[in-house]
Amino acid sequence: MLVLITYDVNTEDAQGKRRLRRVARKCVDHGQRVQNSVFECLLDASQCKLLQAQLLEIIDCEKDSLRFYYLGNSYAAKVEHFGVRPGYEPEGILMI
Amino acid sequence: MLVLITYDVNTEDAQGKRRLRRVARKCVDHGQRVQNSVFECLLDASQCKLLQAQLLEIIDCEKDSLRFYYLGNSYAAKVEHFGVRPGYEPEGILMI
Repeated sequence: MLVLITYDVNTEDAQGKRRLRRVARKCVDHGQRVQNSVFECLLDASQCKLLQAQLLEIIDCEKDSLRFYYLGNSYAAKVEHFGVRPGYEPEGILMI
Repeated sequence: MLVLITYDVNTEDAQGKRRLRRVARKCVDHGQRVQNSVFECLLDASQCKLLQAQLLEIIDCEKDSLRFYYLGNSYAAKVEHFGVRPGYEPEGILMI
C-alpha cells in the first residue's frame, strides 16, 4: 500500500536539526521524497509498523510530529502534483 | 471529501517568502493546518477545483510544488498522528 509520511521536526536547537536529518534519512531508505518533509512509501503492514516504530524512536514527541496517511493500493487517481518536481527520486517508486 | 494539501515553496528570495505566506493563508481559509506545510481540507469537487486554481495562481510552478491527496469521505482510519499536536486548529475539522 502507499503510505504518505509527513513530518514536522522542531529544529530550534542542534538536537532538533539532528533529529530532522535522521528522520529524513530513515524515510529516504523506505520511499520517495516528493517534497521537503513529505515521503511516499510502498510498504506492507508489517514494514509500515516497523518504520513507524523506528521513526518514533528518532523524534521527540514533545516537540515534533509525524503523520501517516494510508492511501491503499489504488492510489494513482488519489494524488495530483503541480509545479516543480522533486530533484530526488531515489527509487522512482511513484510519479503521477 | 478530505483533501490533503502539501506544498513546498522556495523561499530563497522575498517573493518566495511572500508566496509562502499567501499559500498558507489561502489554505488556512479552507481547512486545518496539521503541520507546517500540510493542510487537511473538507471540500467538495468544485470547491477543490477552485482552491487548486487559486493556489496555482499564487505559486511559481518553476520553483514551488503543490500536491493534492484525495482521501475520500471515509478517512478516519486512513490517518494516524504521532507527537505534538498543531497549535492552530481554526476549524477543528479533523481529529484522529
